[in-house]
Amino acid sequence: MQRDFLVQQINQKQSYLCVGLDTDLSKIPVHLLNHPNPIVAFNKAIIDATMDYCVSYKVNTAFYEVMGAKGWDIMQETFDYIPATHLKIADAKRGDIGNTSHQYAKAFFEGMNVDAITVAPYMGEDSIRPFLEYEDRWTIVLGLTSNKGSNDFQRLQLENGAGFLYEKVLKTIAGWGNPGNLMFVTGATQAQSFADIRKIIPEHFLLVPGVGAQGGSLQEVSKYGLNNDCGLLVNASRAVIYASGGENFAEAAAAASKEYQHEMAAYL
Amino acid sequence: MQRDFLVQQINQKQSYLCVGLDTDLSKIPVHLLNHPNPIVAFNKAIIDATMDYCVSYKVNTAFYEVMGAKGWDIMQETFDYIPATHLKIADAKRGDIGNTSHQYAKAFFEGMNVDAITVAPYMGEDSIRPFLEYEDRWTIVLGLTSNKGSNDFQRLQLENGAGFLYEKVLKTIAGWGNPGNLMFVTGATQAQSFADIRKIIPEHFLLVPGVGAQGGSLQEVSKYGLNNDCGLLVNASRAVIYASGGENFAEAAAAASKEYQHEMAAYL
Repeated sequence: MQRDFLVQQINQKQSYLCVGLDTDLSKIPVHLLNHPNPIVAFNKAIIDATMDYCVSYKVNTAFYEVMGAKGWDIMQETFDYIPATHLKIADAKRGDIGNTSHQYAKAFFEGMNVDAITVAPYMGEDSIRPFLEYEDRWTIVLGLTSNKGSNDFQRLQLENGAGFLYEKVLKTIAGWGNPGNLMFVTGATQAQSFADIRKIIPEHFLLVPGVGAQGGSLQEVSKYGLNNDCGLLVNASRAVIYASGGENFAEAAAAASKEYQHEMAAYL
Repeated sequence: MQRDFLVQQINQKQSYLCVGLDTDLSKIPVHLLNHPNPIVAFNKAIIDATMDYCVSYKVNTAFYEVMGAKGWDIMQETFDYIPATHLKIADAKRGDIGNTSHQYAKAFFEGMNVDAITVAPYMGEDSIRPFLEYEDRWTIVLGLTSNKGSNDFQRLQLENGAGFLYEKVLKTIAGWGNPGNLMFVTGATQAQSFADIRKIIPEHFLLVPGVGAQGGSLQEVSKYGLNNDCGLLVNASRAVIYASGGENFAEAAAAASKEYQHEMAAYL
């Protein structure tokens, strides 16, 4: 998906919501368990219910790998069901030496046919290049994550006043791609750092997890994160997909995503 | 697998070789392509041929994910075939927020029933803890990797003379586990840093990729990396499994792994 198209979708829907499909068999409504493929049934119902209020879906690979080969098929079926109007993100946090990253890029960009994949930065340039080589696809690199552990290494200070490690990561990796093929993960719980982040990467899209169950504020994130092209994809997973655990789960997901969309329209 | 057992296997076989099953359909001998499941046939033949000369097998998940759900089954069948005497490593480089890492740990330690998994450190403590919670399993965290990109971030200097980022990563994460459930990836191409690394983590096992195709020296690695319990697992992938591209591929793999074993016996 090209950046122009993504921006157009955001403007049209007045939404920069990404719905996270971290689907867990133990958390979906019990009446679906009689379905031959409960997770696919759940995901399809969620997609149908929320597609008018969001511009992207993020599939967390861990929740599918835990089901083995069957999970891989379910993940594929889920991605295939997402309309072409929505950015398909594999939240996979992959990254390895070049030879291996090339295989991961092929697995997700060709095999799964996703638009975007999340990638970890620790192994450096040759671990990220193979993803960037794909045209009209997006590499979303971890910048400053939403979890408590982000303080352990990402906020280490570098020598000679070079700032935090995560700032160096953003600065360096921005030079390997461009705002049309590269995004960064920046947690919603880190809203106080968004102004600093925007000084380093004013144009890039940020994928922002951590709104909802993790406690981040959409208002704060939007205040400091929005740019001229919107530049944000704010993800909500549990707060949308588990908005109700009953038979009305899809209606509840629609209402929760519509609520985010309304709030986003006000910020745009 | 417990540390005592691993050390016993190393002493018995006089080997600290790990054979990397980075199996690629385009690189296996053509005569195997007629087999209903060529990769499984190849892996089983390699395991049969090399098991007397190595103590561990490392399966690189990328090379299996690229085949989709079928690849996941092939990976499972491969792990199931590895004898209980050999440490089974999923080289997966996973890591995410706690909730998600928990799913990855379950996928590999329960689903795949591996002994060990490689994990990326960037997201910090809560991304690594869920792996460490499994008894008699190993979490192998990226320390100083074998690739050129290791210079981009791992060798950044921290403020106040705190050393390189990778040194801080080793020091910090060593406190989250113990030498019985935690190892670190340290590339063979970084042999000049092994003495420094051993000052920080004298007791831990190091998983050392980069010998063979990547150019690292087994002699150098052993000189600076060995400790009283051996403390090394040196991985060779392409140099062993593709030692011959012909019908004699298994014999050639046996010969290549035996050669490593002989060299290792001399260093032990």
